Amino acid sequence: MKVAIIGAYQTKFGELWDKSLADLIFEASVGALADSRMPAKKIQIAFFGNKLGPQTTSQNHLSALVAQLLGVSIPVIRVEAACASGGVALSQACLAIESGQYDTALVLGAEKMTDQSPAQIAQALMGAASSQEREAGLTFPGLYALMAGKYLNDFGAKETDLAGVSVKNHFHASLNSKAQFQFPVTIDQVMKSGEVASPLKLLDCSPITDGAAGLVLASPRFAQKRQKKNIYIRASQHFTDTLSLSKRQSFTEIPSAKKAAKKAFIQAGVEPSEVSLAEVHDCFTIAEILALEDLGFYQKGEGFLAVRNGQVKLGGTRPVNLSGGLKACGHPVGATGVKQVVELYNQLLGRAGKKQTRKAKVGLAHNIGGTGGTAVVHIITK
Amino acid sequence: MKVAIIGAYQTKFGELWDKSLADLIFEASVGALADSRMPAKKIQIAFFGNKLGPQTTSQNHLSALVAQLLGVSIPVIRVEAACASGGVALSQACLAIESGQYDTALVLGAEKMTDQSPAQIAQALMGAASSQEREAGLTFPGLYALMAGKYLNDFGAKETDLAGVSVKNHFHASLNSKAQFQFPVTIDQVMKSGEVASPLKLLDCSPITDGAAGLVLASPRFAQKRQKKNIYIRASQHFTDTLSLSKRQSFTEIPSAKKAAKKAFIQAGVEPSEVSLAEVHDCFTIAEILALEDLGFYQKGEGFLAVRNGQVKLGGTRPVNLSGGLKACGHPVGATGVKQVVELYNQLLGRAGKKQTRKAKVGLAHNIGGTGGTAVVHIITK
Repeated sequence: MKVAIIGAYQTKFGELWDKSLADLIFEASVGALADSRMPAKKIQIAFFGNKLGPQTTSQNHLSALVAQLLGVSIPVIRVEAACASGGVALSQACLAIESGQYDTALVLGAEKMTDQSPAQIAQALMGAASSQEREAGLTFPGLYALMAGKYLNDFGAKETDLAGVSVKNHFHASLNSKAQFQFPVTIDQVMKSGEVASPLKLLDCSPITDGAAGLVLASPRFAQKRQKKNIYIRASQHFTDTLSLSKRQSFTEIPSAKKAAKKAFIQAGVEPSEVSLAEVHDCFTIAEILALEDLGFYQKGEGFLAVRNGQVKLGGTRPVNLSGGLKACGHPVGATGVKQVVELYNQLLGRAGKKQTRKAKVGLAHNIGGTGGTAVVHIITK
Repeated sequence: MKVAIIGAYQTKFGELWDKSLADLIFEASVGALADSRMPAKKIQIAFFGNKLGPQTTSQNHLSALVAQLLGVSIPVIRVEAACASGGVALSQACLAIESGQYDTALVLGAEKMTDQSPAQIAQALMGAASSQEREAGLTFPGLYALMAGKYLNDFGAKETDLAGVSVKNHFHASLNSKAQFQFPVTIDQVMKSGEVASPLKLLDCSPITDGAAGLVLASPRFAQKRQKKNIYIRASQHFTDTLSLSKRQSFTEIPSAKKAAKKAFIQAGVEPSEVSLAEVHDCFTIAEILALEDLGFYQKGEGFLAVRNGQVKLGGTRPVNLSGGLKACGHPVGATGVKQVVELYNQLLGRAGKKQTRKAKVGLAHNIGGTGGTAVVHIITK
């Protein structure tokens, strides 16, 4: 497949007390359009990823809000797939361009998560798990803690290996002016942070974040008219299987992610070893380690060693989560899947600032909904 | 365009106290698949329209619930566009088939609206309007009452003309064993029913409904392998413009619906006069009259005469809402756009029972979100 990216934008991620959901949508739209040097009226279809809007702002029908803010009359589609809402919005936009029916598409992801009490937002986030899991008293950190505990038990990894993911991603975020947490942390700080759900501690968990991101996509024909060299999405794969963690065979792998990755590599004609950099769904530190293995970058049970050995850090063989990841750049749930590709695009263009990696040729984004009921993988190349 | 419908199913609509949202999704999926004589494992992609699930059941990530209930691992996409969620799910499924990447798609719409207090559900439904409209104290009947009042004022229609829509649709529903209200009403009963928002009375309003509907779509290639004669979707058009009624030029027409209809007739190569029957979005009686005009069936200000003269009743020149419409068959919001096409499909197959119209060749479905911020039009033919 071949879908061009011709513009990208990310708002600051963080506790944005002076911004509403509409403000965030508007900033990301205007930013992505400006980057593409296209007026809104040239956009033929738009996709919007958002999880919590109706619950947190009592606002449904956000597709019509997007159209109203942009001043356009086109199809706008809101998709919701928990924390993979942004990735699903992007994959649907790719399908629209690939269909040949549309030459341009705007992809937005946005979430306004503050303005809620911690209890309210924790309850809303649990909407991504099954009712059985909620009734059993599980929380989202609790579900990922089950996965982490099993991983540590089976593969000889230590809690400090989980902490290593946090340390690496905080370091990357310290180089990212858009990140929520622009400061490094140490293994010791992670280990001493409050226990949330053993073995996960506060600094193993991604935060509550406000933010938005946008991408402008175009058909190769449209993009090539504007400039010769473009960056293309070469694979877009989306799998949905089970809402409940309990319905899966294993706690230490995510089948939907494995399937999406396998199909994406075939679709793009790329080997895992050829990927220069990746943005993966580190909602909890364990999730990044599972991703490294599910994506085929490392053998089962060896992902944590790549973190320990610095292979996935800026300057390593294949840096992962140069944005700071969900952990330290922040995790406005509906925006995350879009922001991952914004980061890859900026890296491939060589405009990623202090966190710029060298020789960025092939980027991979891995976005997960819930405990893995949804997985979306995109591969982009120069 | 040419996308085959190879199976369809509608659950009973009504106050289904013994059914959960998951029960409704499951029944519609199994029913549509059985009608298509296909196992779930042959479905390559699924789209699910639902508005209120996260607000009423605290359940997000319903796409993963759908996949879990079906026992499949495929892309499942939940879309939300207020009361047009079902129509948008169908239009996205058409895009997926038309892209050539998928040969089969399951389209589901479901809503569980009871189990909520009237205040809770009224508040949740107002999520389809803008925050300014909510802050102004408007309700959904209030918004449509503004449209109705302006229409009566401008075009010489009477309140009994609004009531006529209700009487017609209740008559159709009295012939439909799946309808919520299987009884006729008289003009006098409508006129004497409690005032909700002048000039709209209780019997001008669609009810709170539980229900689900499903469609199985296929590429022409796939469908023709199974049988020679098929029913095809020939047009699928979706427009999104403004969330707020106040942002529009007129209260007596819906621009998104006019655009969608105009483009759909061109896409299908069909004239409005060739449409044998239609299912239109009569969330309030005024909405059906506006639809008759926006779709080009009647001139501006003359739609009410078609109702008065019996032209849109079973046995008339072009029956509208033979299912009973949203008014009397019921309006489980996310299911409505799918159910409309289920009804057209059954009519075109000649299996619509007591409400069967003669010479059903071309059917049109018109599904609206909010006060018209979203409109979706589908045309299907033998």
